[in-house]
Amino acid sequence: MKVVSTSKSHGGVQGVYSHTSDVCACDMTFAVFVPPQAKDGPLPVLWYLSGLTCTHANVMDKGEYRRLASELGLVIVCPDTSPRGADVPDEKDNWQFGCGAGFYLDATQEPYAKNYRMYSYITEELPAFVAANFPVDMSRQAIFGHSMGGHGALTIALKNPQRYRSCSAFAPIVQPSTANWSRPAFERYLGSDEKSWRAYDATLLIEDGKRFPEFFVDQGTADGFLQDGLRPWLLEEGCRKAGIDLTLRMQEGYDHSYNFISTFMDDHLKWHAGRLG
Amino acid sequence: MKVVSTSKSHGGVQGVYSHTSDVCACDMTFAVFVPPQAKDGPLPVLWYLSGLTCTHANVMDKGEYRRLASELGLVIVCPDTSPRGADVPDEKDNWQFGCGAGFYLDATQEPYAKNYRMYSYITEELPAFVAANFPVDMSRQAIFGHSMGGHGALTIALKNPQRYRSCSAFAPIVQPSTANWSRPAFERYLGSDEKSWRAYDATLLIEDGKRFPEFFVDQGTADGFLQDGLRPWLLEEGCRKAGIDLTLRMQEGYDHSYNFISTFMDDHLKWHAGRLG
Repeated sequence: MKVVSTSKSHGGVQGVYSHTSDVCACDMTFAVFVPPQAKDGPLPVLWYLSGLTCTHANVMDKGEYRRLASELGLVIVCPDTSPRGADVPDEKDNWQFGCGAGFYLDATQEPYAKNYRMYSYITEELPAFVAANFPVDMSRQAIFGHSMGGHGALTIALKNPQRYRSCSAFAPIVQPSTANWSRPAFERYLGSDEKSWRAYDATLLIEDGKRFPEFFVDQGTADGFLQDGLRPWLLEEGCRKAGIDLTLRMQEGYDHSYNFISTFMDDHLKWHAGRLG
Repeated sequence: MKVVSTSKSHGGVQGVYSHTSDVCACDMTFAVFVPPQAKDGPLPVLWYLSGLTCTHANVMDKGEYRRLASELGLVIVCPDTSPRGADVPDEKDNWQFGCGAGFYLDATQEPYAKNYRMYSYITEELPAFVAANFPVDMSRQAIFGHSMGGHGALTIALKNPQRYRSCSAFAPIVQPSTANWSRPAFERYLGSDEKSWRAYDATLLIEDGKRFPEFFVDQGTADGFLQDGLRPWLLEEGCRKAGIDLTLRMQEGYDHSYNFISTFMDDHLKWHAGRLG
């Protein structure tokens, strides 16, 4: 593990680290906040998955999670959103595909299958790496995220309900396989057989029988992606049919930015802390 | 006034605006946070001056001031740190001079005297512009800042004690006219006669008889600029001799970054709010 930077914050340490990922076949960078309570033993860990165009840094800079994470004693891990590097295929001018747009899936199509394996990276390789290098109690994990990262959190929780005690999201893409801004990426990563897309689509996973006890979702009403890209009502309908307890809060006047996320960050941290014990 | 962007945050509005500055002879950008209490009438205004290399955006993104400013009912104004633009003389590779390094002074030397007039901009032009365009009570103003902006806050308060009800700083440059990282800028903006530099140097202004009732300063002990650039003990000595009430907190292990600033932002906002009534 390479320590990129560490900085004291709210009594804890905000670090940025990199390591060589076998799964993504490139170096990967991630951020970890360790609160001061870590000196007394391992702490619960909350995973934050970021949205399109982001790296680990966006939420680290703008998410405003450290003050309350320090109070609550939560380790916060913020991974990158895709593989990166000179050897990773990318389309520089396309913010909805390639670098910054990994969609938390394992690509099956060439030339993306070698690097674009964010599902395995987030659920297997990085957790093992974090468990080995940080003061975390891996029996107490939770996951949340924003937009594409909300999609990541919901789908990963549905596929690994035993792993995470809680899951929440800010403005998640709840049905990426039918949204115009994500369909092209799904086709290129996963091929034209749309059946294979269902494994990475929260509402379709629920339709196919996957379950998670409860979700907590905040969505701004002034979010420019609400109508075409995010469509939380599809999750609402899916959860209702499946008997999944969904708390969906439509937040009047809030947009898709970190001004929205940071406003409701405290609520999400408290909600997860209450379930992480 | 041009509205660059507005975004709802913590119940208020974080905006970015630009206007044509006569004083700096260029367009200037600044950020204003207006909390929800503004619907009931004008609010006190707290000025935040940023450090070297920063624009209005650094503290807006990383300062974590909105949650508590919304609770306390404070308007927060975050100006840029220098004039900018194609017509503004600059040295691209010098982070301690030119754009991003206005030092809150009025330059007297060519070719800088035309644009580098941040003292007049911050104390005259921008306050008038803010008063005309935002719901602020200009009889209740306070000022704070970081590093070069801490220098700005201290010197501006000392020269305008009737204007500001309170002044605080994060890791301020307390004696820029004798610090190696700021002397070259002072010489080029103000000329070789060091007497003229004293008007923009907090500890020398105090030595020359300027007074402000009290200062509140936080300084990290792991700040890489502490020994050579910041030297808070010089302010401590100056305030002691002058009978100025200084609260100087040395914060163990904190560096010069926004991780330090955001950790203690709440304390500063509460301190100012208590004095703004």
